[in-house]
Amino acid sequence: MTRFADAQAHAHRLKLMAFDVDGVLTDGSLFYSDDGIELKAFNTLDGLGLKMLQNAGLQVAIITGRKAGCVEARMKNLGIDLLFQGVGDKLAVMQRLLGDLGLQAAEAGYMGDDLPDLQIMAGCGFSATPANGHALAKRIARHTTQLAGGHGAVREICEFILDAQGKLDAAYAPFLPGDRGVER
Amino acid sequence: MTRFADAQAHAHRLKLMAFDVDGVLTDGSLFYSDDGIELKAFNTLDGLGLKMLQNAGLQVAIITGRKAGCVEARMKNLGIDLLFQGVGDKLAVMQRLLGDLGLQAAEAGYMGDDLPDLQIMAGCGFSATPANGHALAKRIARHTTQLAGGHGAVREICEFILDAQGKLDAAYAPFLPGDRGVER
Amino acid sequence: MTRFADAQAHAHRLKLMAFDVDGVLTDGSLFYSDDGIELKAFNTLDGLGLKMLQNAGLQVAIITGRKAGCVEARMKNLGIDLLFQGVGDKLAVMQRLLGDLGLQAAEAGYMGDDLPDLQIMAGCGFSATPANGHALAKRIARHTTQLAGGHGAVREICEFILDAQGKLDAAYAPFLPGDRGVER
Amino acid sequence: MTRFADAQAHAHRLKLMAFDVDGVLTDGSLFYSDDGIELKAFNTLDGLGLKMLQNAGLQVAIITGRKAGCVEARMKNLGIDLLFQGVGDKLAVMQRLLGDLGLQAAEAGYMGDDLPDLQIMAGCGFSATPANGHALAKRIARHTTQLAGGHGAVREICEFILDAQGKLDAAYAPFLPGDRGVER
Repeated sequence: MTRFADAQAHAHRLKLMAFDVDGVLTDGSLFYSDDGIELKAFNTLDGLGLKMLQNAGLQVAIITGRKAGCVEARMKNLGIDLLFQGVGDKLAVMQRLLGDLGLQAAEAGYMGDDLPDLQIMAGCGFSATPANGHALAKRIARHTTQLAGGHGAVREICEFILDAQGKLDAAYAPFLPGDRGVER
Repeated sequence: MTRFADAQAHAHRLKLMAFDVDGVLTDGSLFYSDDGIELKAFNTLDGLGLKMLQNAGLQVAIITGRKAGCVEARMKNLGIDLLFQGVGDKLAVMQRLLGDLGLQAAEAGYMGDDLPDLQIMAGCGFSATPANGHALAKRIARHTTQLAGGHGAVREICEFILDAQGKLDAAYAPFLPGDRGVER
Repeated sequence: MTRFADAQAHAHRLKLMAFDVDGVLTDGSLFYSDDGIELKAFNTLDGLGLKMLQNAGLQVAIITGRKAGCVEARMKNLGIDLLFQGVGDKLAVMQRLLGDLGLQAAEAGYMGDDLPDLQIMAGCGFSATPANGHALAKRIARHTTQLAGGHGAVREICEFILDAQGKLDAAYAPFLPGDRGVER
Repeated sequence: MTRFADAQAHAHRLKLMAFDVDGVLTDGSLFYSDDGIELKAFNTLDGLGLKMLQNAGLQVAIITGRKAGCVEARMKNLGIDLLFQGVGDKLAVMQRLLGDLGLQAAEAGYMGDDLPDLQIMAGCGFSATPANGHALAKRIARHTTQLAGGHGAVREICEFILDAQGKLDAAYAPFLPGDRGVER
């Protein structure tokens, strides 16, 4: 089995997909202002991807080591309640979450880009890293996206999962023109 | 007819050109700050392109799914009154607008980059997507720009339209040095 | 004479070098926030380049079509007093400035990237445009930099001018290690 | 000895590694807002690199020519106390610091990207510059990173140093999955 097919097989079983923030939902940039305010740049493509996952019945979670008010604002905006910030041991948080949700590790996935993500990535059935992920993250990840963090890597992995579960066409369907298009 | 010539033929008929915001007038980045303020990065090249369209007699509109105060500020700055934010069904908004303006769908165009743009793109005579648009947006779009969203994609499409309408030289004219240049 | 040598010859005569802001000192991004604040991203490389020009005895000016408080803040920081914002006719402002300073057009240069810069570029002895400048700016400019606006294009042109005037080594001199380095 | 091996040999002796800010810990962008606030974009990868250096017993310092509140905020966040801002003569500051710490120049390193960094780079046993550093910085630097400033250049140099000191595996160890991974 190729690595791609292996990644698809594992993505096929997912019921919960969790994501890192910095370097995955962003390009890793941490904007600091003189008056102590922090900013992050999320990507609109990723937002729709996360909604498509949720609409397809998957649970979506955010598990991140840092803690910032802007992450809370963005996730509220996306309707993501499973938000865990300031996490030291990400795998432990994932395991508690799996217990709460009554899920197996094989039904969970994580997308991360750096060393603090390796254990949770290895501890989940499916794992992914963006094109600009750390070399060790790429070695452990089931799948590496073409796109970089903050530039659509999360959207790409959302569509990869939906495709692996045979749900991508259904996710696209409400957006297709159908008979709403003008005659060409 | 080549795809390029086909796109030109449709752009030739445009009287109203509408644009998406995130991923088209920006590179898709949504800046969130800790204190809940949102920022977007527009591009100065695009601003002049939109003014050139207006000066050439075309109507310019913004139809976008999200809603942000910064979009209002930028569009006020550019003198664009036809601003529709927080739109669920973009094609429906376009159709109402066409009714108000007494225009046909063949006289309208839309530039978008993602799934929520497919129906309005298919429902307009002309459509465009930036270099970094979603694969489905590229399949539907009459024309795909060389430049990416937020990096001049809108300017490129404005000049494409003016060129297709034979109005580009007239748009350039007031800027050319003419006899104001020093002898070379 | 090659185009490069021609550009050098014109840069050799410069006593005043003026710059556009958006797309030249920045990458063209206009950051708008929900509360109406505008931000721009300048580049630290450019700041040192402008100081090197000033230290070498050249006058440095900013002539720009838009108007923003952040430009004032940055230029104050760099000690540049010749700041002209909100300018409609850039060449007219340049000509008044040349009159005030008692300089000839052949002793002045301008770096711009877009249509509103063409006349002032053609009206100065020397002109330059960044790698990402508009096609017409590249056609008129004496020199096009390798670097893009906001990524060091201004610094590159400052060193180009100092080199053309035989002043680059002197500008580098105070920074060189000389006998301050450890033995290698 | 190749240049790479020479750089490794010098990095092997390091007990103190100091960094420039603009262009090294950032991509050189200086964000200015209308209301006079300055922002910088740091990178999450670099933060972990600096912590790994500290955990391995190296001292980490910041020596920078500019002065901004956001640098203080970021360094506090990273637990870096040796923060010197608004420095005119960087080498002099380094020499005082070496005296205070009882270290030799051969045990100190500096990563910088531009002219004001040349003397301190030459005055330290080890020196590095990011992929986008000035040509003169590249000539003087013992090592040039593959990554650019603000995009992980500092992280890369941190791992380079740890590797040269035979400490990289130990730095990775606490992050490796070990027997925490699911069976594959």
